[in-house]
Amino acid sequence: MKLDKLVGDRFKERPSDCAIDSHALMVRGGYIKYVANGIFSNYPPLKRVTRKIEQIIREEMDAIDGQEVMFPVVMPASLWEESGRYTSIGSEMVRFTDRGKQPLVLGMTHEEAAVQLVREYANSYTKYPFMIYQIQTKFRDEARPRGGLIRVREFTMKDAYSFHTSQEDLEEYYKRAHKAYENVYRRCGAPNVISVKSDNGIFGGSVSHEFMLLTPIGEDSIAICKHCGYTANVEAAPSIITNVRDDASEPLTEVNTPGCHTIEEVCEFLKAPVEKSLKAVIYQKNTDDSFVVVFLRGDLDVNETKLTNYLGCDIRPAVIDEECGLQAGFIGPVNLVVNGEHTVLFDSSLKGANNLVCGANKVDFHMTGLDMERDCADVEFRDLAKIIDGGVCPECGEKTVGISRGIEVGNIFQLGTKYSKSMGMTFLDKDGKEQTPIMGCYGIGVGRLAASVCEASHDDYGPIWPMAIAPWQVHLCAVRADDERVKAAADKLYGDLQSAGVEVIYDDRNVRAGVMFSDADLLGVPLRVVVSPRNLDEGVFELSSRDKSLSEKLTPDGAVQRLRELIAEMMNK
Amino acid sequence: MKLDKLVGDRFKERPSDCAIDSHALMVRGGYIKYVANGIFSNYPPLKRVTRKIEQIIREEMDAIDGQEVMFPVVMPASLWEESGRYTSIGSEMVRFTDRGKQPLVLGMTHEEAAVQLVREYANSYTKYPFMIYQIQTKFRDEARPRGGLIRVREFTMKDAYSFHTSQEDLEEYYKRAHKAYENVYRRCGAPNVISVKSDNGIFGGSVSHEFMLLTPIGEDSIAICKHCGYTANVEAAPSIITNVRDDASEPLTEVNTPGCHTIEEVCEFLKAPVEKSLKAVIYQKNTDDSFVVVFLRGDLDVNETKLTNYLGCDIRPAVIDEECGLQAGFIGPVNLVVNGEHTVLFDSSLKGANNLVCGANKVDFHMTGLDMERDCADVEFRDLAKIIDGGVCPECGEKTVGISRGIEVGNIFQLGTKYSKSMGMTFLDKDGKEQTPIMGCYGIGVGRLAASVCEASHDDYGPIWPMAIAPWQVHLCAVRADDERVKAAADKLYGDLQSAGVEVIYDDRNVRAGVMFSDADLLGVPLRVVVSPRNLDEGVFELSSRDKSLSEKLTPDGAVQRLRELIAEMMNK
Repeated sequence: MKLDKLVGDRFKERPSDCAIDSHALMVRGGYIKYVANGIFSNYPPLKRVTRKIEQIIREEMDAIDGQEVMFPVVMPASLWEESGRYTSIGSEMVRFTDRGKQPLVLGMTHEEAAVQLVREYANSYTKYPFMIYQIQTKFRDEARPRGGLIRVREFTMKDAYSFHTSQEDLEEYYKRAHKAYENVYRRCGAPNVISVKSDNGIFGGSVSHEFMLLTPIGEDSIAICKHCGYTANVEAAPSIITNVRDDASEPLTEVNTPGCHTIEEVCEFLKAPVEKSLKAVIYQKNTDDSFVVVFLRGDLDVNETKLTNYLGCDIRPAVIDEECGLQAGFIGPVNLVVNGEHTVLFDSSLKGANNLVCGANKVDFHMTGLDMERDCADVEFRDLAKIIDGGVCPECGEKTVGISRGIEVGNIFQLGTKYSKSMGMTFLDKDGKEQTPIMGCYGIGVGRLAASVCEASHDDYGPIWPMAIAPWQVHLCAVRADDERVKAAADKLYGDLQSAGVEVIYDDRNVRAGVMFSDADLLGVPLRVVVSPRNLDEGVFELSSRDKSLSEKLTPDGAVQRLRELIAEMMNK
Repeated sequence: MKLDKLVGDRFKERPSDCAIDSHALMVRGGYIKYVANGIFSNYPPLKRVTRKIEQIIREEMDAIDGQEVMFPVVMPASLWEESGRYTSIGSEMVRFTDRGKQPLVLGMTHEEAAVQLVREYANSYTKYPFMIYQIQTKFRDEARPRGGLIRVREFTMKDAYSFHTSQEDLEEYYKRAHKAYENVYRRCGAPNVISVKSDNGIFGGSVSHEFMLLTPIGEDSIAICKHCGYTANVEAAPSIITNVRDDASEPLTEVNTPGCHTIEEVCEFLKAPVEKSLKAVIYQKNTDDSFVVVFLRGDLDVNETKLTNYLGCDIRPAVIDEECGLQAGFIGPVNLVVNGEHTVLFDSSLKGANNLVCGANKVDFHMTGLDMERDCADVEFRDLAKIIDGGVCPECGEKTVGISRGIEVGNIFQLGTKYSKSMGMTFLDKDGKEQTPIMGCYGIGVGRLAASVCEASHDDYGPIWPMAIAPWQVHLCAVRADDERVKAAADKLYGDLQSAGVEVIYDDRNVRAGVMFSDADLLGVPLRVVVSPRNLDEGVFELSSRDKSLSEKLTPDGAVQRLRELIAEMMNK
């Protein structure tokens, strides 16, 4: 198409409200338009990108025997009551009533709808396994949308649901889905996507993987072992700490630590290494406001995902008042006083440690010489800490774990029977016995993937789209389109490329070359052809690639052929 | 794909809750699954049909320079407040608030979003004309969903919006859009779609057309002139009545009509033709409950769309109580008493009439000899009646209008400046003067079109899908798949067809031929190939078409080639 008719503005200035580059470039390049918090309209260039991503996803889902279906965006609350999630999910799910006062919800995921669609159909083992998927709009009322399309409230998602008669069958299919996901990212030209073990959150189930595009602006922290290649979301990675016990345990001694509130201050004051300290982190349960005291080694942080999973309820940082008995800044395991219902937990990092500094439960006092075995006998230790950079790899045991940042661009879950069971889905097995099917689910956010690729592949001037998902394949610039020779040659090339099935955007505006090229940079089309008076004097067109790896002259006769070859090469098939 | 893995059940019995054939067949054939009132999930065969329809629509929209975009499903109420529709649209629009108490709506149409997307961009006449469209989920909280996918609450729609600098330019584009719509229906194989002038309802604007698929189960009534081909929705068609005045007017005389309440009863009692009577129809305004009395000729019906448009507010049939002064069953224009605020209207059908029977505003009394010119001088007449079968054509003036039923499968509107003006969208014209752009909008419901084609093209056994939108192109049946020869030949043909890019569904189940064929009928695939022991004895496969127009033998060597030829022929390109 002609650039002068392309709907949407392109401009130079970085909008002040854009914290990350892909967001700024998508606004500057005429890809997205803000409608409301976390809600955007898509201009034509982005729609072209996402349609290509959707088609790649569709092909890969079909290749693993997926069948495309369509679930509703609006669902009756009753469906979500069957699974129990109508009450267990909080305000991120939109609830409303229709004109007949029937309660409805906006779909934020479709496990319930998937089971509802197939539970009568899949009543015999002969129907299994099967997988259904859709590509559709979802709405989650996120508390903090951010980063343009990275975290939004309304988004297009491919969600897939597989059904199996055994765990083995699920696991086999799960591997195929994992491979299909790798294909999707490779074909979309998304560099640096790795799969990591993850926490399952609201979806339930046991094994799951997130696909992470590594980038410093990512919201997630990922543990990657440099030695064996183990990867996991920090939320899900076990924290392994082996304490070396001092030969002799010193006596437990109260010491005055005036004005020392944080564990770092205390350790510095007492000249103790922070690894030889115990700190307390206090939460309150959202369900009953009761206090949760977590003790762990002073140099570590609480992994709130692990803590929430262990407690089985949501938590928040505690507000410590006088009534509760806790002495903020001086809390320790010996002589601990907490009024009312409460929970006290010890992280594994404390196991076997001695000669620790800790709070004395008394204002301006700490203790030295804490010996966990002697002074806190009989406590249970649990893994409640975050894995640290330089920590022990849970797979190979080496101290080679590094922490990277990533954007989650997809996830796959072994759901088990959470939904099939609660929603009464059964099948008759070979022996005529009633069984509950086992499910997997598999998601990719289309817009987030587009934005992530932009984040991972751009320069200061715009996105550098991979060929397979670029809005167009060739960007044709007629520099000095008011020159008849230029106009004629460029028009002809435009026509020839269109006839050859090449997706071409054609800029024949009477504007300065600088304006033309900065617009081309913002559209990020992989191949650029410039027709100009100077080039025509030489009898050539000028070809360059958006990523600057390629620059050559094309003869007018050979241009279409050469461009087609390059496009095919750059397709990541 | 293999039929034995196709998700969804097919069965023989017509579900009792299906009033129309397409609904019953879509349930029986495993196309749709009821989720809630007016909300369905789509099984794979329907998803395949709708994706093909979407692709045809997309190609035709691109061919008239449309640019595909994506608007949000969830929109802030503020956007709809700008246009005034937040208050003017009733309970068919879903309203809710998010976690931050911001009011949001579910998109039921996207004029506001379209203007919001382009109003900064399109600030100069050089950007015009342009058209943007999307294919997306919409939700309208219909009071009475019915007929399966014919009238639903959630649906996928293509909606397009064009922007122009002049009415002439809009009209020129409107013609192109009209042609593109004709192409869509032709390519989808929808028979018998005609375009009719329509009422503009909530969209505003002046000229508009509906595309109607003619079928007796249609919800809309369409006036079609058998003489000149004029077509219009009955809601929008002018009603033209020319009364022949009797030479002499009789005196106005009160007569006793005991027990006669309807105009038909009165006319029969008084032996007057119903065309020589005046009847009253009473409404109340929804805004202030005031009464609206409409007088029209006894043989006609009120066109409530015309009445609503004239009054500028919604109405409902009146509840006549004693206080209002009206004598239900005996209401007439002479000595009419209505207490409180009210409106009295006369339909054009009464103009010039004399010697009419009418109510006397007195229980058990009517009048004869009413002369409109003499007894109701100075009243204004307006067109408020429905056009009748055999009525006068507004175009050619002949009494050749017939009334047909149709399903609206698309509509196009000349919107004018309703949205651009209210939302403050302007552009600078050639002279640097600020102007308001003129808009058109263009909609097609994808699911409804699929169901309408099914309604128009089916038999007792299932849909007869046109090739271009059929879920598959070829249905391959291996009758006696337990016979090794059959299995081998059918497997080979299946593989060859797939390699040739033919969309084939393959039934190699060990079931009776009858079961196989009734499943094939329900899937409605246009071409069927049967491989059976008997055929193989003859050295052939058996080919037939779903519409029974074709039946021939295929040689194993020539089968793929012949099928590809037929598919190409049947594509309605």
